[in-house]
Amino acid sequence: MSPEDVSRVVERLAFASIDHLRPLTQGHPEVILCAGKTPEQAVAIAERLEAANGSFLATRADAVHRGALMARYPRAEVNELGQTVYLPPDPEPPPTGRGTVLIVTAGTSDLPVAEEAAVTARALRNRVERLTDVGVAGIHRLLTQTDVLRGAGVIIVVAGMEGALPSVVGGLVKAPVIAVPTSVGYGASFGGLAALLGMLNSCVAGVTVVNIDNGFGAAAAASRINHA
Amino acid sequence: MSPEDVSRVVERLAFASIDHLRPLTQGHPEVILCAGKTPEQAVAIAERLEAANGSFLATRADAVHRGALMARYPRAEVNELGQTVYLPPDPEPPPTGRGTVLIVTAGTSDLPVAEEAAVTARALRNRVERLTDVGVAGIHRLLTQTDVLRGAGVIIVVAGMEGALPSVVGGLVKAPVIAVPTSVGYGASFGGLAALLGMLNSCVAGVTVVNIDNGFGAAAAASRINHA
Amino acid sequence: MSPEDVSRVVERLAFASIDHLRPLTQGHPEVILCAGKTPEQAVAIAERLEAANGSFLATRADAVHRGALMARYPRAEVNELGQTVYLPPDPEPPPTGRGTVLIVTAGTSDLPVAEEAAVTARALRNRVERLTDVGVAGIHRLLTQTDVLRGAGVIIVVAGMEGALPSVVGGLVKAPVIAVPTSVGYGASFGGLAALLGMLNSCVAGVTVVNIDNGFGAAAAASRINHA
Amino acid sequence: MSPEDVSRVVERLAFASIDHLRPLTQGHPEVILCAGKTPEQAVAIAERLEAANGSFLATRADAVHRGALMARYPRAEVNELGQTVYLPPDPEPPPTGRGTVLIVTAGTSDLPVAEEAAVTARALRNRVERLTDVGVAGIHRLLTQTDVLRGAGVIIVVAGMEGALPSVVGGLVKAPVIAVPTSVGYGASFGGLAALLGMLNSCVAGVTVVNIDNGFGAAAAASRINHA
Amino acid sequence: MSPEDVSRVVERLAFASIDHLRPLTQGHPEVILCAGKTPEQAVAIAERLEAANGSFLATRADAVHRGALMARYPRAEVNELGQTVYLPPDPEPPPTGRGTVLIVTAGTSDLPVAEEAAVTARALRNRVERLTDVGVAGIHRLLTQTDVLRGAGVIIVVAGMEGALPSVVGGLVKAPVIAVPTSVGYGASFGGLAALLGMLNSCVAGVTVVNIDNGFGAAAAASRINHA
Amino acid sequence: MSPEDVSRVVERLAFASIDHLRPLTQGHPEVILCAGKTPEQAVAIAERLEAANGSFLATRADAVHRGALMARYPRAEVNELGQTVYLPPDPEPPPTGRGTVLIVTAGTSDLPVAEEAAVTARALRNRVERLTDVGVAGIHRLLTQTDVLRGAGVIIVVAGMEGALPSVVGGLVKAPVIAVPTSVGYGASFGGLAALLGMLNSCVAGVTVVNIDNGFGAAAAASRINHA
Amino acid sequence: MSPEDVSRVVERLAFASIDHLRPLTQGHPEVILCAGKTPEQAVAIAERLEAANGSFLATRADAVHRGALMARYPRAEVNELGQTVYLPPDPEPPPTGRGTVLIVTAGTSDLPVAEEAAVTARALRNRVERLTDVGVAGIHRLLTQTDVLRGAGVIIVVAGMEGALPSVVGGLVKAPVIAVPTSVGYGASFGGLAALLGMLNSCVAGVTVVNIDNGFGAAAAASRINHA
Amino acid sequence: MSPEDVSRVVERLAFASIDHLRPLTQGHPEVILCAGKTPEQAVAIAERLEAANGSFLATRADAVHRGALMARYPRAEVNELGQTVYLPPDPEPPPTGRGTVLIVTAGTSDLPVAEEAAVTARALRNRVERLTDVGVAGIHRLLTQTDVLRGAGVIIVVAGMEGALPSVVGGLVKAPVIAVPTSVGYGASFGGLAALLGMLNSCVAGVTVVNIDNGFGAAAAASRINHA
Repeated sequence: MSPEDVSRVVERLAFASIDHLRPLTQGHPEVILCAGKTPEQAVAIAERLEAANGSFLATRADAVHRGALMARYPRAEVNELGQTVYLPPDPEPPPTGRGTVLIVTAGTSDLPVAEEAAVTARALRNRVERLTDVGVAGIHRLLTQTDVLRGAGVIIVVAGMEGALPSVVGGLVKAPVIAVPTSVGYGASFGGLAALLGMLNSCVAGVTVVNIDNGFGAAAAASRINHA
Repeated sequence: MSPEDVSRVVERLAFASIDHLRPLTQGHPEVILCAGKTPEQAVAIAERLEAANGSFLATRADAVHRGALMARYPRAEVNELGQTVYLPPDPEPPPTGRGTVLIVTAGTSDLPVAEEAAVTARALRNRVERLTDVGVAGIHRLLTQTDVLRGAGVIIVVAGMEGALPSVVGGLVKAPVIAVPTSVGYGASFGGLAALLGMLNSCVAGVTVVNIDNGFGAAAAASRINHA
Repeated sequence: MSPEDVSRVVERLAFASIDHLRPLTQGHPEVILCAGKTPEQAVAIAERLEAANGSFLATRADAVHRGALMARYPRAEVNELGQTVYLPPDPEPPPTGRGTVLIVTAGTSDLPVAEEAAVTARALRNRVERLTDVGVAGIHRLLTQTDVLRGAGVIIVVAGMEGALPSVVGGLVKAPVIAVPTSVGYGASFGGLAALLGMLNSCVAGVTVVNIDNGFGAAAAASRINHA
Repeated sequence: MSPEDVSRVVERLAFASIDHLRPLTQGHPEVILCAGKTPEQAVAIAERLEAANGSFLATRADAVHRGALMARYPRAEVNELGQTVYLPPDPEPPPTGRGTVLIVTAGTSDLPVAEEAAVTARALRNRVERLTDVGVAGIHRLLTQTDVLRGAGVIIVVAGMEGALPSVVGGLVKAPVIAVPTSVGYGASFGGLAALLGMLNSCVAGVTVVNIDNGFGAAAAASRINHA
Repeated sequence: MSPEDVSRVVERLAFASIDHLRPLTQGHPEVILCAGKTPEQAVAIAERLEAANGSFLATRADAVHRGALMARYPRAEVNELGQTVYLPPDPEPPPTGRGTVLIVTAGTSDLPVAEEAAVTARALRNRVERLTDVGVAGIHRLLTQTDVLRGAGVIIVVAGMEGALPSVVGGLVKAPVIAVPTSVGYGASFGGLAALLGMLNSCVAGVTVVNIDNGFGAAAAASRINHA
Repeated sequence: MSPEDVSRVVERLAFASIDHLRPLTQGHPEVILCAGKTPEQAVAIAERLEAANGSFLATRADAVHRGALMARYPRAEVNELGQTVYLPPDPEPPPTGRGTVLIVTAGTSDLPVAEEAAVTARALRNRVERLTDVGVAGIHRLLTQTDVLRGAGVIIVVAGMEGALPSVVGGLVKAPVIAVPTSVGYGASFGGLAALLGMLNSCVAGVTVVNIDNGFGAAAAASRINHA
Repeated sequence: MSPEDVSRVVERLAFASIDHLRPLTQGHPEVILCAGKTPEQAVAIAERLEAANGSFLATRADAVHRGALMARYPRAEVNELGQTVYLPPDPEPPPTGRGTVLIVTAGTSDLPVAEEAAVTARALRNRVERLTDVGVAGIHRLLTQTDVLRGAGVIIVVAGMEGALPSVVGGLVKAPVIAVPTSVGYGASFGGLAALLGMLNSCVAGVTVVNIDNGFGAAAAASRINHA
Repeated sequence: MSPEDVSRVVERLAFASIDHLRPLTQGHPEVILCAGKTPEQAVAIAERLEAANGSFLATRADAVHRGALMARYPRAEVNELGQTVYLPPDPEPPPTGRGTVLIVTAGTSDLPVAEEAAVTARALRNRVERLTDVGVAGIHRLLTQTDVLRGAGVIIVVAGMEGALPSVVGGLVKAPVIAVPTSVGYGASFGGLAALLGMLNSCVAGVTVVNIDNGFGAAAAASRINHA
């Protein structure tokens, strides 16, 4: 593709350069990270994406962002726990990924990150399942679910505090495991640093890690894997 | 499986408990991390793994470890740059993964980590390709290789210093991208911390990260993906 | 200059020592950093600077600082995004720098820092241009702008998250490149630390760095270069 | 006790003040930390302790320390892995603690720290058992040993890398669990920091932690518990 | 126990998996950590625990959590300083631990953490005593209380700032000492990091440490010791 | 002094142990650190100190603390910038220190810390002088004041950002120099860490340092020196 | 330029991709960073660069690298302090930069970094001057050299420990100032981190910073400025 | 003093600018920090200082530095533990400070830092006393020495590990207390960081701190105080 072609598919606003090549390069349109943007900026970008793709996904949308986006697109769906606004295509097409994306959480407080992941995985056309509050403090809660774990195509494990769950899960399955540290904890958790370091140092071969609280990124990676 | 069955497949030495269930649970036998083990311990573990699987892989093997393992298994193959000793099955079976594992390095100094990844990926029965010294300082070195990038099934990107390469690669492809920060650099690289943080904060959706210099783990994750 | 001369040009208030030598030593008058000062202190210092130079620039001015300064100097100009108040000389003299200061941002959320830089560069008598939201996730957004990049005298690159953009820009041009990490991001961005470390470890020769979110300092450095 | 009495039981050398009150205050004599001391200093302190108690324990004794101490006290016992020299009382009295101190290690590389703990626990008159290489990567290695775990009076868990083992062990037993992070690992383990933070953030109620590689301190704590 | 049995004792809610095995495995029911949970979630979990055990303990309960729990269980007891809600069994059984749990604080500002520990220790059926504001700045405040210190079965020492108190206490007694760093302090206390590091590096043999501000965990550990 | 005597001079409240020995041991009564205490606690402690000494000093007193203390002691003096409440003896005795305590600030934003130091130094009976806003950016502001600097008995230098001022001052005088880093700054100042590290690494022999923002501690140290 | 053209100017070796476009894109050929490369790799790259440009520069060349390069190119020049090997063009062309690059060091121990900068600046065709050991501990050493400072086109300031010198220099001149922190120091200098943070937080407008010990990068930046 | 006068007292070597004003400005000649200097540089600087002052002090002198300096000045005195070389004036003048500088160490391993302090204090003309191995683990070792502590003019407290000793000492005396953290320890001592943070957060009013292992700086500060 020549530079002229490329510049045709970059839409330049005063405050943003919308990249309409993303479906070709990365497999899906841009996603709106609302944090750091005004509600007006978020809506304006949503409009360009909706015009091009008939759909958009916005993450890290606080109450004001959510209000502005829902006022403009009443058909969109809000996930309050996950702080997302998703306008699905109409009609919503079926999942295209090979298997199921299983989202496992260590504790109740990890649910917001898990929900961000779940909505993202759906928007990227994956089947999603959940397994909740199975942290290692009572390991039989997890061990009785090995069939669920072994049936998944990709597993996202969301955990704060010491972040031990991905190692245990990774030891039980052959599937790819993506670890998401969360900022759940206090004191020497240092905002999720403890969980992040724990996951990076997993003694299990083949666990990969994303940023603290980055449910979105974990789902995007899972979707890349599920569509590979 | 009952506890009695399980204990039959754990072989207890004085200094190690060999886990012969790994092929069933994680899809491949244990790998010997030589660092922190004496050469005698490494050889003893290699013997148990060879007896059970006809093959073994040892990583982080320094010259003394390599000498001891080669003396015991002259048929094994050494990769000096990658510090590995690999005894392939005889005959070595063909790769079983769906696609190719492409290992991309930012600079010449990242090659040891890339070689550890390459040997591991082969041992886990994946086809391996390499793309070397295509860091972002001269980005045309990378951009002229987009066909290679887009032909890969999974991409491992190995980079030190600011660790920017995974973001650029991830922006060009749909495939899963695993970022490996290296300890290449000095001063405020803090032993690879700068690259690690950069990769964790990638602005590209779906890049996952492993520990600093962890070529082994990146290959294990790539193999999980390639066999999913 | 004797100590007596020097003391004549230092104006001592109860809470500040105004340095009227700055135009001679550093090429421009003091700039008021409002953070940590009361609105009354900011106005009082503005009055001394206006009396001496017919102009002043205030940065990190929150709504209360802005209100107090505008009440006292209605002719002054507010940049809300950049949190600046600038009273230009009347009439405003033309730029004196040799070339253009180009301010490049990786994402929409980096704009506040970029605007602080833009206003500062103007106040220090430089021509300013902007290139917005050209982060590395979609690198064609940047590559189609190489003519703009190569036409600049000095380039300020403002980026958060992994901070990869200055390396890519620096690899494309001969001009001086000043990197400004921003606190945009979350989790392991650690308030901009990830971007800062990335920029300090740039694999491109000749990129320099200023403090996190320090658009003012980047513009001051660019102006020193542009007037050298 | 008056100050005069106290000063009688503090033996002042040029480079050390031997505290002969320790058996009364803390329940056992001083232990010689060889690191940072010359072999001559270590021997001189050992002589004072042997004279007072008929016994001594030296930790962190490198080959030179070990040689000097063994030359002076041929009856002493060296543990090379644990870097200790122990001169037991003659005859050695039986253990006095209520239960068994069980020392559990995650991997082979954690053994040096575990051995330091084992020798210390013995010197403080405790019965010692060991459970080796039962890290969470293959959790059945641990789960088949729950009877051993539940039979222990106090459990010391020694683990590097992500340090997940103490949480899993702590979830299976009622006994006190002391976690010892080790410096085993590389990259983002940061010399054991990852394991330390993981253990401090354990999701299991009642796990306590000692310094990285501090097998001695863990055993001293276990002995306090076992004699309480 | 078979997987079927285990799954009968794990009660799965939409947002939590209640582990009814805890009294068997760890010696006491789950405790509700309110931080990160909605009041509704906290109440729902409390209901399950009350149904199973006739009692519950909730920690880190802010005013809203406390209001919701008290509205549902007016018989419960609030400790505002310690931010706990405790519903004791009716009638409350006597303590079962061997000795007394003594909670020592360095300063007045450490009291909230100490109170969390005190309520937890009582709920886990231990006798509790307190010694308040005996920090090392005026060491005679502590030294005149050595009888109290030496009469305790387990000692919890709560201190912020430099965290020196556990070392001094640990030097005076044979009993187990659990150190709790607090986030009391400012500047280079870094939210309790200074106290945490100080306690981990205690020069006294046998002091163990829990997370910053973790009064709950210290009491759980003390109770394990007191019931061993 | 016997333990009985000592216990007479420690006044035990429910939440504090007032140390009435301080004038004998450390040369001045306890000072009330209001942060972390309720207003009622602060007033109660103030009452004990006033009863014993006819005077008290409270630091880190926010508006509520100040209100409560002034309501109880209308004669007390508030320093709002320094957040202190001081009840001087009546009549206030003259300074007893040998020389003058000079408090030098780098910038206007450092004044709150300087005022805390100034009030403390006065309360500890020292003569106080001030030199304001003489940071190194315009070094002639400082160099024209070398007579003031050289006339001081002890110098406290208060600076944030890079914290360079103590080195320059220390190079100009023979007197003791106490450096106080402040949390003034942003980004990579990390809450004063940059200034703290700078001061600890001063290339000038004999500069000592206190905690970030610890004007109180600097004044206490200066007073020890001034009365030595 | 088409991809075909580009690929012609990237020379692919087994371990490196030589970028022959650098003179066009960044204004000068690639420089060989020897650290992390074998001597054979360094020589092989030098051969390609010499063939293309008649010259090369190698930095971070230890004794073995230097020996290998000098054996192959006896005409090259070694700077042992700066650890560089430079093969100048024959004949060496005159400097092309507008002004002088002045390299200022705080102390004798900073000289290796300064020499790396000096050789690099020369290789990039700049006039170089030096001002040595003028740290702030004796500030008259610097102040008597203000004419030298004010005559420079660009100033590189190399300093370790607290890194205060760039602020003082930056306050005295209008020229661009590039600060290079060095790892000179011990303890809380943390390998140059203290100096780095100090320089990033400079209170002087317009000081920019490069990585710790990065004399090469500072000279490259100075050369970009000097040729702008 | 005019610039001309000043330049006369700065002696410029190729690698150093000797500051002969130091006795006037700071009260004593420059001291040679050997670390980072070649033996030849150290000797050359010693020669200039000896010529001007009849005396010199060199610190951080390793065996090679010590050999070179002793070869040139056989009359000089080496302190191997403290790594100093001191050439006293001949005859050595009596101490001039008001009181005694007491150097207190927590443990035997802290002696090297204490000896550096002792030699420095003597060279700066102070009377020196020592109190060794009185750490808080056995606090009666310290408490029996309160008369020694209270007789000192200035106290330097040298301690590693948790660094608690300065707080306890500072609570017992009115004299100025300078705390020196040492790098004694392992694991989470992080090279002395734990002790440094502990000392900075001392709960005792008026303890000041110098860099880790900086016995020299502590003595210089003590001497400033002792001569004030």
